[in-house]
Amino acid sequence: MRNSLSALWSARSVAVVGASERPGALGGRPVQFLRRYGYQGRILPVHPKHTELFGLPAHPTVAACPGPVDLAMILVAADRVPAAIEDCLAAGVQAAIVCSSGFAETCAEGARRQEALVAQAKAGGLRILGPNCIGSVGVATGQVTSFSPLFEAPTTRLVPGSLALVSQSGALGFGAVSLAFERGLGLGWAVSTGNEAELTALEVLATLAEEPECTGLLGYVESLADVDSLRRLAAAGKPVALLKAGSSAAGARAVASHTGALATDDRVTDAVLRRYGIVRVSDVDELLDVGEAFATGTRASGDRVAVVTTSGGSGILAADALAQRGLRLAELSASTTAALAEVVPAYGSVDNPVDVTAAVMARPELFQRCLDVVAADPAVDVVLACFCVLTGSDVAGIAEGLARVRQATGKAVLVARTGAEHLAPGAGAELRRAGIPVYATPGRAVAAAAAVTAGTKPAAVAAADRGASPAPGDGPSPPRGTSEAEFKALLRAHGIPVPTGRLATSPDDAIAAVREVGGRAVLKAVVPDLVHKTEAGGVVLDVTPGTAAAEYQRLVALGGTVLVEEFVTGAVEMLVGVAPGPCGPMLALGLGGIFAEVFDDVVLAPLPVDPAEVRRMLGELRGAALLHGVRGRDPSDVDALVDLVVQVSALVAGWGGQVDLNPVAVLPRGVRVLDAVYLAEGAD
Amino acid sequence: MRNSLSALWSARSVAVVGASERPGALGGRPVQFLRRYGYQGRILPVHPKHTELFGLPAHPTVAACPGPVDLAMILVAADRVPAAIEDCLAAGVQAAIVCSSGFAETCAEGARRQEALVAQAKAGGLRILGPNCIGSVGVATGQVTSFSPLFEAPTTRLVPGSLALVSQSGALGFGAVSLAFERGLGLGWAVSTGNEAELTALEVLATLAEEPECTGLLGYVESLADVDSLRRLAAAGKPVALLKAGSSAAGARAVASHTGALATDDRVTDAVLRRYGIVRVSDVDELLDVGEAFATGTRASGDRVAVVTTSGGSGILAADALAQRGLRLAELSASTTAALAEVVPAYGSVDNPVDVTAAVMARPELFQRCLDVVAADPAVDVVLACFCVLTGSDVAGIAEGLARVRQATGKAVLVARTGAEHLAPGAGAELRRAGIPVYATPGRAVAAAAAVTAGTKPAAVAAADRGASPAPGDGPSPPRGTSEAEFKALLRAHGIPVPTGRLATSPDDAIAAVREVGGRAVLKAVVPDLVHKTEAGGVVLDVTPGTAAAEYQRLVALGGTVLVEEFVTGAVEMLVGVAPGPCGPMLALGLGGIFAEVFDDVVLAPLPVDPAEVRRMLGELRGAALLHGVRGRDPSDVDALVDLVVQVSALVAGWGGQVDLNPVAVLPRGVRVLDAVYLAEGAD
Repeated sequence: MRNSLSALWSARSVAVVGASERPGALGGRPVQFLRRYGYQGRILPVHPKHTELFGLPAHPTVAACPGPVDLAMILVAADRVPAAIEDCLAAGVQAAIVCSSGFAETCAEGARRQEALVAQAKAGGLRILGPNCIGSVGVATGQVTSFSPLFEAPTTRLVPGSLALVSQSGALGFGAVSLAFERGLGLGWAVSTGNEAELTALEVLATLAEEPECTGLLGYVESLADVDSLRRLAAAGKPVALLKAGSSAAGARAVASHTGALATDDRVTDAVLRRYGIVRVSDVDELLDVGEAFATGTRASGDRVAVVTTSGGSGILAADALAQRGLRLAELSASTTAALAEVVPAYGSVDNPVDVTAAVMARPELFQRCLDVVAADPAVDVVLACFCVLTGSDVAGIAEGLARVRQATGKAVLVARTGAEHLAPGAGAELRRAGIPVYATPGRAVAAAAAVTAGTKPAAVAAADRGASPAPGDGPSPPRGTSEAEFKALLRAHGIPVPTGRLATSPDDAIAAVREVGGRAVLKAVVPDLVHKTEAGGVVLDVTPGTAAAEYQRLVALGGTVLVEEFVTGAVEMLVGVAPGPCGPMLALGLGGIFAEVFDDVVLAPLPVDPAEVRRMLGELRGAALLHGVRGRDPSDVDALVDLVVQVSALVAGWGGQVDLNPVAVLPRGVRVLDAVYLAEGAD
Repeated sequence: MRNSLSALWSARSVAVVGASERPGALGGRPVQFLRRYGYQGRILPVHPKHTELFGLPAHPTVAACPGPVDLAMILVAADRVPAAIEDCLAAGVQAAIVCSSGFAETCAEGARRQEALVAQAKAGGLRILGPNCIGSVGVATGQVTSFSPLFEAPTTRLVPGSLALVSQSGALGFGAVSLAFERGLGLGWAVSTGNEAELTALEVLATLAEEPECTGLLGYVESLADVDSLRRLAAAGKPVALLKAGSSAAGARAVASHTGALATDDRVTDAVLRRYGIVRVSDVDELLDVGEAFATGTRASGDRVAVVTTSGGSGILAADALAQRGLRLAELSASTTAALAEVVPAYGSVDNPVDVTAAVMARPELFQRCLDVVAADPAVDVVLACFCVLTGSDVAGIAEGLARVRQATGKAVLVARTGAEHLAPGAGAELRRAGIPVYATPGRAVAAAAAVTAGTKPAAVAAADRGASPAPGDGPSPPRGTSEAEFKALLRAHGIPVPTGRLATSPDDAIAAVREVGGRAVLKAVVPDLVHKTEAGGVVLDVTPGTAAAEYQRLVALGGTVLVEEFVTGAVEMLVGVAPGPCGPMLALGLGGIFAEVFDDVVLAPLPVDPAEVRRMLGELRGAALLHGVRGRDPSDVDALVDLVVQVSALVAGWGGQVDLNPVAVLPRGVRVLDAVYLAEGAD
């Protein structure tokens, strides 16, 4: 065995602790399922009294079982689990599936029980799936080490494939498995992780991603806290789609009460998954839709989609969905449209979406010629064929053309076929065999196209960073209680532009300091723990030598010192922040001041970031146009802003605390950090 | 017959012009389909030479057919259509389905041909479906007057029901019909409208909405321009869902090239459909999902949803989807949660989402008790039951409980059942018979719940306005070329607050005018055709008596007169506009100035509006918080703003031109229209 986890799907022997012939007993199911689905390893029922169960020899303990035991499945009451684990340790078992409930999902007592379970297992080097999980399945080996009712239904057949499906929620996970099998989407592995006391869904996914036979991974997860596994998963380089529950506040609360996982800000989830090249989906259907694309090996080298349709309506819906998903309609070359004009009837369209019209259905070779022409255009990364009601022979002609294009060009080809299955039975399966996923509607096909395109956009910077932790900054983190003036001095020392200025020591010195910065200044009270400086009247704008003394005296009365800085006008104000996230430090970049407060126009990304990533983030701001100069204003110095963000990110990545630069003034030439706060780790 | 359109689905006789026994000829299909699907009316093949076709007597012309002909179906080449229409007119036919292509969808020549067709039909009082359409179906009568290949497939069976499905796109429409039948969703009517030369999808929908047997309507439309039919459709009071294509710019262009329909700003579509209580969906699947809810008669009296689940994961996904769709998780009363605590195991949840856990599946009566308790809570409008892998008997127990709740409380009950159909065959059909729609995933069930909740939210103002055109204003529209000063005088005369001020006639008069408005003024150049006044330097803020003469002289040099107005500070600036839309005048309400320009933070609604609707619109602005006072500022006088918007809307509703009030200053007390532009109809 490659590692102890592989016993979860390819054990040579399975002990079932709590096996029972009593009708309705969960403990009987795995034994029956292992036999029914053709498991070839040794099945070892464990029962304190019986010596035979289901016609198999039973043993009083795991340790008493003959030969090595790779995997133990534990289906006894919670209070009997510790003894069962002890038994597993004595038998040298490497992995155990604890199906029993009554742990952290119940009450404080259960949580303590779970902690003890983890400690016991870790001490003995035993890996634990669960507790409160529904088990695991290795489809190729027929290893149904699960008690899901799915496997009890007489109509259930395992559909083998090369995808893995891992779910924290057992009921939802095996529900998804049943829907996958129903649509003919084969799986190689299905694992439920339950309470994740020790093994997380992310670790199981990462382990499966390293199985050579696995070509894609689907997951339902409630937490991304196991960031090391997330990185390992991404590093395997196989396509991954996750349904991350808890996107809403109410959902996050329900996650917490369900399995105790801490849900993160949903935008953090988006940003982290994006960075790791992981596709995020929002429902079980979409998870399986993306799985269909993974299973066919569909991967796009770019986001330019050519839509070829026999139904104008489908083409329009596809164009709408492409815009909504952020993909582009490919701009076909003049020679492509000219070649299409020789094939497409006058009432069709040679522009993308290309409407071949139903008229050519009678002559499939014309449709095929259109496909060949479109797919050969170098401006096309993805071909999306949309058709509606078509019966057997028509679909066969189309399928042939699509398969040839897929084969000849290697480009991603997807099909939206908006018609009942019985109209062309088998056509879907034939297309899938040719490496072409098939969906019922244009919208669903486009969602899948977006999934296989994720990570191919120019702005994605995933690859370089995969598997790498953010590099720590080159200096120690500032001490707790660092003042604005001290923090700015530190920034200046690292070449990050802050306003000229200094602390003033007296009213006369304030006048001198105002003169030093050019005669117009900002005066700021530097008072420990005064966070909302502006609201407290601690900031005065546009101070002149004439008003400096009086303002100095007012500010110093607030209880600290007074900082005098050049008065910066005519800038676009931005917010640059770094805060610890569940997967390492996160950069927040947005418009500052009232825009941040009211519009929350902020984009997040995990550190590290490079200039391309910072530019992508700026482009995603709703108010991005402000930086380009609106109402006759000069454009802002975006290059300098990008440099500043990259510099700051590198500097603070290893600090652990929270950095808020708000506002950062972006001038037509240059930038200045106007306000800078550092909160040390654990400070509040 | 109630009206001539009902011949499209319940004709007593159908003439098929272009009928042919030639293999592959479209003209043969309707004759074969009418017979195959049991049409009991008279089928009248029309052929210039043959006297018998498909074993039926054929006639040389429609006029030569015996007895009255209700409907003619025309499947001849475009150039022969005029003669066929003439024949129909001679025969006294009331409606014709023109399947022929070669009209406006092709070229300018085709467009002229289409115009001539409409003129010819209108002159003779003949209603025309098409051209370039695939026909219509009355399911109850077996009237398949369509050539869609759907009806050719040997496996196709019509599934009767009480829903209507109307589609501008024939291929997409009959594709959707096939998918509806495949999922057991019955239809009573299916109509494709093609080029809509004369009959629009909206008019067909409105007509079907008046059929007593019709209980809900689904449509695919590319245009909402037929606003009279839209109003009539809404006035029928039956549930309607529309898939409106062309939401993206590329989609809108494709719509224009597809059928020549002019697509509108997608937000206009949203606003208009919302006003008329019509559900908008984004894909064919969602259209049919909503159809399932309509077909079961599911209607919600409010948007508070209780989720009851046997799988924590499903409950979380449901909570996420509810938040995303703008529905609320019902807040269960203390007595409800107390009653639940007696039933739900410790590791479940008695808060919404209520997680009964899989443990109670063995005892369905417990699940039923939970359902009864939750459904009886007056804070619950909708019950959403989510379960996953459950086999036959378990589902039967749940279904029984759900059906009882539906029956006893009349509340909307929906089911998300995330498991393969074969695990509990027939359960879905049983639930549907009990008035409970069933979906594969929580997300889809929530989308359907949102659809049956639309129109029940407090903010909806649809009912009062259904069927009513906006009341015209009480005065004539201002003349073309109305200046800002003239327009403001008109607003003032109608009690709408504008700044105090007047035109100045000389430098000295400007000084006097500045004094009159309090010593601080705004000076504005009033120059015909100077639209971008600010960019042209035509507006000077904060002018004092000392600077007034010089500024006056600078402004007057721009070529017009000079308006002196009080200088308003400390206001939140809003934008209030009214412009002609495809369905009458539309109100635009948003944050003014840079917010409108960069963030496009604007909400639309068709006129008329009442104060509640204006408040709803304000609440939907992303920057709504600005009106409530941020950063220690006083809250703005929202009441005065609402009054102003309602007043302005009533005043300008009948004018036909475009009104832009931007900015409108909203002060802590009162409002002022700082800038006002009127562009007469047809002006640019």
